[in-house]
Amino acid sequence: MELNEIRLFSPATVANVSCGFDVLGFCLDTVGDEMVIRKTDERGIRITKITGYDLPYKVTENVAGISALAMYNTLKPECGFEIEIHKKIKPGSGIGSSSASAAGSVFGMNVLLGDPLNKTELTSFAMKGEAFASKAEHADNLAPAIFGGFTIVKSIHPLHIIELPTPKDLYATIIHPQIEIKTSDARALLPQKVPLRDSITQWANLGSLVHALHTSDYDLIALSLNDVIVEPHRKSLIPDFDTLKEKVIKAGALGCGISGSGPSIYTLSQGIKVAEKVEDAMFMIYESTSIPFDTHVSKINTEGIKIIK
Amino acid sequence: MELNEIRLFSPATVANVSCGFDVLGFCLDTVGDEMVIRKTDERGIRITKITGYDLPYKVTENVAGISALAMYNTLKPECGFEIEIHKKIKPGSGIGSSSASAAGSVFGMNVLLGDPLNKTELTSFAMKGEAFASKAEHADNLAPAIFGGFTIVKSIHPLHIIELPTPKDLYATIIHPQIEIKTSDARALLPQKVPLRDSITQWANLGSLVHALHTSDYDLIALSLNDVIVEPHRKSLIPDFDTLKEKVIKAGALGCGISGSGPSIYTLSQGIKVAEKVEDAMFMIYESTSIPFDTHVSKINTEGIKIIK
Repeated sequence: MELNEIRLFSPATVANVSCGFDVLGFCLDTVGDEMVIRKTDERGIRITKITGYDLPYKVTENVAGISALAMYNTLKPECGFEIEIHKKIKPGSGIGSSSASAAGSVFGMNVLLGDPLNKTELTSFAMKGEAFASKAEHADNLAPAIFGGFTIVKSIHPLHIIELPTPKDLYATIIHPQIEIKTSDARALLPQKVPLRDSITQWANLGSLVHALHTSDYDLIALSLNDVIVEPHRKSLIPDFDTLKEKVIKAGALGCGISGSGPSIYTLSQGIKVAEKVEDAMFMIYESTSIPFDTHVSKINTEGIKIIK
Repeated sequence: MELNEIRLFSPATVANVSCGFDVLGFCLDTVGDEMVIRKTDERGIRITKITGYDLPYKVTENVAGISALAMYNTLKPECGFEIEIHKKIKPGSGIGSSSASAAGSVFGMNVLLGDPLNKTELTSFAMKGEAFASKAEHADNLAPAIFGGFTIVKSIHPLHIIELPTPKDLYATIIHPQIEIKTSDARALLPQKVPLRDSITQWANLGSLVHALHTSDYDLIALSLNDVIVEPHRKSLIPDFDTLKEKVIKAGALGCGISGSGPSIYTLSQGIKVAEKVEDAMFMIYESTSIPFDTHVSKINTEGIKIIK
């Protein structure tokens, strides 16, 4: 029987991951959008339902629509597609909300067309939607959403994505302080030039982290999750960042940093128990502020975006 | 029977390795110094023989003497040591000549004392000699000389060295153009600040290279061996660098770059046949210049410094 409709889980993701600014990312398991992609006789792309957040139905103004359209116009299939977006990831939260939408439509269409495209090609089309959302072409959230696990975006032109291994006991805890950080503000804080000395520290850390992921060396993961380039400039955008970081490390987290360009903060821990203790520590800090927030504990999702019932 | 004298092979090494400026290095197998370390009843450190190159006999002016003395003054053993240095690696060639000397004395003394120190501790003492030679504390040649294979010096304070795996079919070809490059000149060419954009490219490459070494992915090694930070500034110091690089890549080399701060140029290749073809290509270019040179083909030495008969 030919498949005409699928329901997807399109996961949230953490980009940058301290030492891997602009190239590294990983995929979450317990936070993500649901999307329904439906094949239709009528040609073209339509967004038929959006729940959760108020997003545009117009295909050319919606990231899921834009990525779908880019793929559709290239493949020129004999059918059309309807897209339903059940948005669970708050737009602007810093855990890949637009990437989840952009990835979902192309992933779903690809399944319904019999998998003509590979994951790198899907990422490439999804980047068209992502570029609309963030005004810049990047794939550091899309790659982990589509491939799962940890990924390095080695280059954008040509698009080259590397899948890294995931130590089996690694968990993320995320806090999303519900403040708005404009990507343009986060970008404006970045210097055009950085000290060579700091760059050397950063690539020593990223090289070490990649080795640590390959060898499941949790101590080395902890020693490598440092960001001497971007975090010092951006952390002022997030209330109580330093205090929170200090407390989650005390609670046992291997590392802590800004997720994407914020405001979410990610931590990584060995084992779910530590990850939950870290969540408690986050509550302690943020409950004493007037800022609304939510938290998530998640195993690293090594599968990425997937079909659900 | 107690060992009173050992003969060592103290290998040449390549530091920086394009994308790993100041942190990455690897160890050579066919080029290195020979050193004899002898336990004596008389206390203290003496350098009793130097062949190959004209180097100071005075312990406090010789890198092997300085590193030996640092270790000796800390361990305070009940004996003394004589050091013979049979120098094969030309000082200033850019393949870790001073590191080989500094590593040899401490490695040999450690064996004769019954191995009281681990490899990181040995590196730490050897750094005292290296610091005298290069006016800066670094371990990017010492670490591969002592540990073998590919190493990352993650940090100097505290000294943290990471051993990376070596794909079994990886060979280096080195050309040493016999010109003098003062380390101070090579340093003066480096900017204090570098574009953030280039730094991102560099750490994407180093992260990818570490993954490639773990997965024996020769294609990815080739794609990762790029240096957008240092090579553009320093390559002008080495005659015909661009031409040579173009020809060795054409001959099949996976990558090519400045070894340390030069003047030697390293390449990596898959298989000894390609490494030899690369050597031929180097000859072609440099025979047409008036610059004397020598070349070496070497398997990556995964053992590092070792006792020989």
